[in-house]
Amino acid sequence: MTKLPTSLQKLINELGKLPGIGPKTAQRLAFYLFRQDKIDLDNLAQTVAKVKDGIVFCSVCHNMGEFDPCATCKDDRRDHSLVCVVEEPLDAQAIDKSGQFNGVFHVLGGVLNPLEGIGPENLEVQSLLDRIASVGTGLDLSLPENGQRVKEVIIATNPSLEGETTAMHLSKVIRSANSTIKITRIARGLPMGGDLEYADDITLMRAMEGRRDY
Amino acid sequence: MTKLPTSLQKLINELGKLPGIGPKTAQRLAFYLFRQDKIDLDNLAQTVAKVKDGIVFCSVCHNMGEFDPCATCKDDRRDHSLVCVVEEPLDAQAIDKSGQFNGVFHVLGGVLNPLEGIGPENLEVQSLLDRIASVGTGLDLSLPENGQRVKEVIIATNPSLEGETTAMHLSKVIRSANSTIKITRIARGLPMGGDLEYADDITLMRAMEGRRDY
Repeated sequence: MTKLPTSLQKLINELGKLPGIGPKTAQRLAFYLFRQDKIDLDNLAQTVAKVKDGIVFCSVCHNMGEFDPCATCKDDRRDHSLVCVVEEPLDAQAIDKSGQFNGVFHVLGGVLNPLEGIGPENLEVQSLLDRIASVGTGLDLSLPENGQRVKEVIIATNPSLEGETTAMHLSKVIRSANSTIKITRIARGLPMGGDLEYADDITLMRAMEGRRDY
Repeated sequence: MTKLPTSLQKLINELGKLPGIGPKTAQRLAFYLFRQDKIDLDNLAQTVAKVKDGIVFCSVCHNMGEFDPCATCKDDRRDHSLVCVVEEPLDAQAIDKSGQFNGVFHVLGGVLNPLEGIGPENLEVQSLLDRIASVGTGLDLSLPENGQRVKEVIIATNPSLEGETTAMHLSKVIRSANSTIKITRIARGLPMGGDLEYADDITLMRAMEGRRDY
């Protein structure tokens, strides 16, 4: 049996550990990398090793960034009374990219998952309640959100079982802490380009529930 | 617009250069890596940087390996009179894995591609002809292929336009150098688990041409 050289086999094994990379893709990627110049390999290796360098978590929204507070929390052109709660930094990124949202974020750092032992105390739930309760963050009086109360919390956790559970829990604790604040949930329905015929029952049910006047 | 931290964005860009990795996958992988421990990142980085280390090309079959001549060319349980010509090392690996081939390989290092300026002189064609012409490699008299003439050349380039052109060219030059050697081409037809209804015309044509008595 022809055996692959050790260094190549090791890279295939390492790449195969990445999410969504199967054995065949790992092999293809490893051979591709093998054919690259040493300088490009070193460059990629350095970038991998340094990915955590210089990244801090914002003490206001708990998103990742290069400064604390992050650029979004310091931006006074944004509406700091509108807080969008998301699971992960990528979700904030996705919503921001859509260009339709001009508020600020609050990154939970995950979802409630009793099976994996993840409760509200493992997520940024208390800091969200503190943020809603306070006038601004109290961290730095020059921050734009100071003096601006949170008026609306948009819960934008994923439409998964855990995401929905987390959304329900959040709405409950926010409501019990503040009876006047507006709490909304992003719409669930048919995605653009989707097909009624192939939509699952829950999506269809949500789409019907969420129908609006036309 | 929320901007991703520089180190993360750089990793997304680097990963996005890999074949088959789109922008979304690059982002997902970069975030996954970001969440890994520093020690795992360093490990992956080292493996990437060192992938070329200790790999040599076999002077007999031009496959990659850790020794020259490679383990396959030195294996005396193999039939050195049967040479399978493939495009790339991965192809040799795939054929070997199937377990049905007990001969040796000859890795061309690509296919003829006039548009990209790749002619026979850029591939291991002359070395194949030399290998067929000589009795053994002449490199080392202790090698098992010494004293054993090549009796059959199986051309196993891919069933692509370039692969077929290369196969045609090889059969022509081998024939003109040696009029008695057996030259074969791997069968092209319907893949296992394939469906006649969805097969393309050329595959069907090849499958009909290649039919055998049952």
